[in-house]
Amino acid sequence: MNINGRHYRTIWLKEPECRIVRIINQLALPFSFEILDLRTVEDIRRAIKDMYVRGAGLIGAAAAFGMYLAALEAGDGSFDADLAAAARILKGTRPTASNLAWAVDRMLAVLSGRTEPAAQKRETALRAAREIADGDAEECKSIGLHGLELLRDIAQKKPGETVNVLTHCNAGWLAFVDYGSALSPVYAALDSGVKVHVWVDETRPRNQGASLTAWELGHHGVDHDLVPDNAGGHLMQHGLVDLVITGADRVTRRGDAANKIGTYLKALAARENGVPFYVALPSSTFDFSMKDGVAEIPIEERDATEVRCVTGMTGRGSLETVRICPDTTPARNWGFDVTPARYITGLITGRGICAASEKEILKLYPGGNNG
Amino acid sequence: MNINGRHYRTIWLKEPECRIVRIINQLALPFSFEILDLRTVEDIRRAIKDMYVRGAGLIGAAAAFGMYLAALEAGDGSFDADLAAAARILKGTRPTASNLAWAVDRMLAVLSGRTEPAAQKRETALRAAREIADGDAEECKSIGLHGLELLRDIAQKKPGETVNVLTHCNAGWLAFVDYGSALSPVYAALDSGVKVHVWVDETRPRNQGASLTAWELGHHGVDHDLVPDNAGGHLMQHGLVDLVITGADRVTRRGDAANKIGTYLKALAARENGVPFYVALPSSTFDFSMKDGVAEIPIEERDATEVRCVTGMTGRGSLETVRICPDTTPARNWGFDVTPARYITGLITGRGICAASEKEILKLYPGGNNG
Repeated sequence: MNINGRHYRTIWLKEPECRIVRIINQLALPFSFEILDLRTVEDIRRAIKDMYVRGAGLIGAAAAFGMYLAALEAGDGSFDADLAAAARILKGTRPTASNLAWAVDRMLAVLSGRTEPAAQKRETALRAAREIADGDAEECKSIGLHGLELLRDIAQKKPGETVNVLTHCNAGWLAFVDYGSALSPVYAALDSGVKVHVWVDETRPRNQGASLTAWELGHHGVDHDLVPDNAGGHLMQHGLVDLVITGADRVTRRGDAANKIGTYLKALAARENGVPFYVALPSSTFDFSMKDGVAEIPIEERDATEVRCVTGMTGRGSLETVRICPDTTPARNWGFDVTPARYITGLITGRGICAASEKEILKLYPGGNNG
Repeated sequence: MNINGRHYRTIWLKEPECRIVRIINQLALPFSFEILDLRTVEDIRRAIKDMYVRGAGLIGAAAAFGMYLAALEAGDGSFDADLAAAARILKGTRPTASNLAWAVDRMLAVLSGRTEPAAQKRETALRAAREIADGDAEECKSIGLHGLELLRDIAQKKPGETVNVLTHCNAGWLAFVDYGSALSPVYAALDSGVKVHVWVDETRPRNQGASLTAWELGHHGVDHDLVPDNAGGHLMQHGLVDLVITGADRVTRRGDAANKIGTYLKALAARENGVPFYVALPSSTFDFSMKDGVAEIPIEERDATEVRCVTGMTGRGSLETVRICPDTTPARNWGFDVTPARYITGLITGRGICAASEKEILKLYPGGNNG
């Protein structure tokens, strides 16, 4: 994606040495565009935990690069044990997104039990991490092309009019290595001349819609409006949404989808108002070990401060955090909710669009995440 | 209701002269407790328009006192014309809450076409405005006693456990003259020893849940937690809500309810998860002239700044407004949505609880708002 006319990914290696991982600092957006250097597994751990990087695909790619840095740090004689320790540390950062464990496990599978010299294993780690990052970008591009067909169909039914998409949180290119999942079809539509407008849910408590989705849509020239999370039902009741597309942090083999808290409410409103509700995801977001998402997917509970306080820019141009409730008010902060498959019209994947059902998912992914 | 041990209403006349209307400045809450003096119709207009006072019942009472001030200001020879002009000004402040027009029309009906001296008409206006304010408080108290039965029933089914109520926006005593609508049953429960806990929706964009509901529940000693508006579906999926109670700004004769934007999404989640969803309201909130709420109730669209910015208290103790999105991001801001009657388990009124249907509403209110 382009920022001020220059192409960026959200994560890359500093060339030519390839010993430093670079990221866009998403905590600084939308107010400043900063590149951070990550040099150690500990840097990567903190970047994921404290959300300098976030979003299903990007967390996976960051973890893969973290495992590469672990291979650089690992002792020659304790390579496998050191990698296993790094894997535990990285997996412990955030519980809900399945891409994280998927990427770490894939790196472990490639690197464990090898007999060649450590230098060669480090080369292998570099190649494997790059494959994960490149694969994420390629898959997201493909999600865009499949999703584009949905937007084209709607556009054909109302010639000359704008297709209105509602999205929740940020599942754009900032949430992946490039392109994004939910927003990739929107970018593909723009590129192919389909008139599209996006309703951007603010996405309290961390406001990723207001700070990230609005920022990337603005940079890419996509027509959009920010709305409170409360507005989606009203919009759908009044025919102002043609299609809902969200991302996902984990999707079970039956098609239940964990995504940012509040997604489920939009899915309910979509069904009640006959609006198609799609979840866009790369294969690494599937968790084939789980069936019942509401019962099984672990939901991260985060610090109450995120609910009690909001950070933004004052009129004088300084960043401030303000408390919006009485000093003594307690708050709870679950990061995700689960939308059961029955509310999901379809899944937009890199291999095409399928129903959110075990049978249809396994038709597209007979070998699970890896085949 | 009590604040720091002293009883307050949200609006009253300064005794003994009764020529100045006093209000709690709700724009200053929860950070400071301020009393404002309103001396003219223009003061009242601004207080309603700019939301120094807000909430269905309180807007009605403020408008009634505004009409009393109009009677004080009116010329002896142009009394009826001056009152009609004030009525137009006051009705033009906010379009959605029906209590506003109801109170103004009731004052007009009492005061227009009278032949006694102006001084006597002013006495009549004072009495009529007081009746509206006292009637609001009395009716809200009665709503609490009827709603209490719902909480008692739940408490009896899970002895020793806490009854969890979710509410959206502020329909507590700050939204009325006293007691509140949605929160009146909660206060009644507390007084009668029923263990109750309230999930307080933040209520973006103006955060009336975080700033007003959390404040009044805290002052009254009611156990509560602030949650983002996005959380309600997750809470209901996991059995953490026994009952949803919201207020309303306008309810049609068929039982469709306009309330703060986002209410409809909670009603959908309640129905999907078998959680009872009640709307609490005084009779002045009914609009018997309307049937289909989604098609007919006018929805106020407010300034985009409320969505783009958030106001709160910094760590240094100063009030700041911060922007949460890029400077160029456009936003839309509808203030209310409509929950169709079919999603509403029942209406809690001053005369008892009834189904949200024309037949049942007219059984309780055979004479409409005024009988």
